[in-house]
Amino acid sequence: MSTATEHGYTPLTIDTAIQYAKGQSYFTQNEEVYGEEIGDGNLNLVFRLTGQDGQRLIIKQALPYAKVIGDSWPLTLDRARIESEVLTIYGTYVPELVPKVLHTDSVQALTVMEDLSHLQIARKALKKGDHFPVLGEAIGRYTAHTLFFTSDFGMNQQDKKQLQKRFCNPDLCKITEELFFTDPFYDVESNSIDEGLQAYVKEHIWNDQTLLFAVAKAKYQFLTKAEALLHGDLHTGSIFADETQTKVIDPEFAFFGPVGFDIGSFLGNLAIAHISQAGYATADDDRQTAKQSLQQQMMSVWKTFEDEYATLWQNHNVEPHASIPGWSEKHIEAIWKDAVRFAGCELIRRTIGLALVEDFESIADKDRKLAAKTAALRVGKHLLLSTNIHTSEAFVKAVVS
Amino acid sequence: MSTATEHGYTPLTIDTAIQYAKGQSYFTQNEEVYGEEIGDGNLNLVFRLTGQDGQRLIIKQALPYAKVIGDSWPLTLDRARIESEVLTIYGTYVPELVPKVLHTDSVQALTVMEDLSHLQIARKALKKGDHFPVLGEAIGRYTAHTLFFTSDFGMNQQDKKQLQKRFCNPDLCKITEELFFTDPFYDVESNSIDEGLQAYVKEHIWNDQTLLFAVAKAKYQFLTKAEALLHGDLHTGSIFADETQTKVIDPEFAFFGPVGFDIGSFLGNLAIAHISQAGYATADDDRQTAKQSLQQQMMSVWKTFEDEYATLWQNHNVEPHASIPGWSEKHIEAIWKDAVRFAGCELIRRTIGLALVEDFESIADKDRKLAAKTAALRVGKHLLLSTNIHTSEAFVKAVVS
Repeated sequence: MSTATEHGYTPLTIDTAIQYAKGQSYFTQNEEVYGEEIGDGNLNLVFRLTGQDGQRLIIKQALPYAKVIGDSWPLTLDRARIESEVLTIYGTYVPELVPKVLHTDSVQALTVMEDLSHLQIARKALKKGDHFPVLGEAIGRYTAHTLFFTSDFGMNQQDKKQLQKRFCNPDLCKITEELFFTDPFYDVESNSIDEGLQAYVKEHIWNDQTLLFAVAKAKYQFLTKAEALLHGDLHTGSIFADETQTKVIDPEFAFFGPVGFDIGSFLGNLAIAHISQAGYATADDDRQTAKQSLQQQMMSVWKTFEDEYATLWQNHNVEPHASIPGWSEKHIEAIWKDAVRFAGCELIRRTIGLALVEDFESIADKDRKLAAKTAALRVGKHLLLSTNIHTSEAFVKAVVS
Repeated sequence: MSTATEHGYTPLTIDTAIQYAKGQSYFTQNEEVYGEEIGDGNLNLVFRLTGQDGQRLIIKQALPYAKVIGDSWPLTLDRARIESEVLTIYGTYVPELVPKVLHTDSVQALTVMEDLSHLQIARKALKKGDHFPVLGEAIGRYTAHTLFFTSDFGMNQQDKKQLQKRFCNPDLCKITEELFFTDPFYDVESNSIDEGLQAYVKEHIWNDQTLLFAVAKAKYQFLTKAEALLHGDLHTGSIFADETQTKVIDPEFAFFGPVGFDIGSFLGNLAIAHISQAGYATADDDRQTAKQSLQQQMMSVWKTFEDEYATLWQNHNVEPHASIPGWSEKHIEAIWKDAVRFAGCELIRRTIGLALVEDFESIADKDRKLAAKTAALRVGKHLLLSTNIHTSEAFVKAVVS
């Protein structure tokens, strides 16, 4: 595991970030540049720099540890390389959906990239009830293209194996293995369980062996099903959006895993946004509109994925068996089943695990918060255990119920 | 892809092999050493050297191409590293079942190892009707230990990912992807189809879309299910044996794939040995005894695997979810299902593909050969399509029928 000791690496400050950008000629030496650190600061430093004519850019630098857990969880700086390489690869498939990479520095573990602050972080905006009419469609297209073209169907199968070597990502995968698939399902210290929720969690999560078994199988898929180069952390906090644009950032968790994981993570977060609406004292009408829009996005992400993936399969498949009748449909069906289960895990871990979400945490009313969280656990369980969720309509029904 | 151009690499002759061994002090400079090249010569040179006091060793050197297909299929010399590293790793788990590695030379792509000529190649001996009463048990133990300890259950999950990088094996995997899972199922030039068998193959293999679909799914498992470090080519020609000993050689196809592949390959080859017995003009009694012994081995390989794997699971599991009731049984059941399907592919590809086997090819009587091959195709299909082969007894029944 690589850590802070890597030769020549120094965490930037606002001043040194500005110097660095000037050194790279993004600004002139005498220019007045305004800088701010805007990262949530868990794993990375993120500097937004603005020149005197208003031109902006982002410098994202990896930290050698995970701050959310304390300095005690060292994290390889190599994830900065992974992130910038994945942004570049994905940029060849869906340039309109990823930020432009301007420069990469492997020693400083940083990437200089396009600033996206004209857009909003989807999680924050969805919470407020904002609608993003093209979000679901965009993520459907994003996942279809990035996952198809890095799979054994969309790229030379020998090249895929070589690519897989470059995205062996044990440190970051370990975080997901523990925080997504393991810790929330046992009574361990890293969990954050609201007062009033303990009894429910104990009875309905930790003591439900059928649920634990479903989670165990989902984790094993994550560990072994090397289908395509995933984003690996595709939640609404990794997405910038407005009414017409969508940009997916932060693929530092990228690795070759099950295609359903990215889709399931995103669906799970839309479900969380939906369930948390009940916690806010907005007008009933607004709340209904927000919920309907979220339901629409949940359906359109899958419908778009399904359509685009099937079209790519038909037009760009390199696998000789691909034209066998039924293979495409069966494969897409398997991706959907995986996605539903991963969404279930996401709902549960974001409700009681270490990495909680502001959708729930910023609900001021304690009872409403508890009710929303209980609903999230119930829906998460249902997604993991039901064998009847065959369509995105059924998924929405499970979330709404 | 690395080829013959690698710096300093020179294929050995008998004379230079002897010089090399003397240079490494395995023999004294003035000693009279007898050498012979004993490889089947498809992918490698294999020299057996015998000193004047009778001490023997093997030098195995990778060739930069696959001879069976001609110089036109270049093959990385890196497979010599893979083979010697896997022999060393496996040697830590089942030292009694692998040859001892004495020396490795990455430039010359060679491994010096223990000679095993006191044993017989299982394929040749089984064909003659020889019995190896411990063979099934040995391969059951071999697969259980090597595959458990290189899986996410038997080793640190981050270390497994790093190990997987070392055994990315695109060149050799490509051979299996094409010759095992693709070419035999289409009318392509590389196949070798006996006169008299064409009509059957066309109707029952190439035109059976249900069969092709089952093969497509099996191939996808091979491409994406990265469960454990496989041998990757575990047929009876890769096994030395006698009445009490078993040694598995040639893991140059090693990579992280589905656990059921090694077991299925071996089972498929026992089934081939069984079916081919009918082709030989041996006495009925001898044939019956040989067949009964093979049936016994088919059952004991699985029963031993199942028992040993379950015990390793219980005593050495690193996965926190492993103690969830039912997980072990369900996982072993999934391995069995995979193994049955892979065995089915092996039967078919060894009957009509490029890499045929002497079990069938040395049957002198044309009609008997055709009958045996037809039976192999029928059994192979059944293994791929049946959903009722839940036990090793049922597997034997399918082979015998």
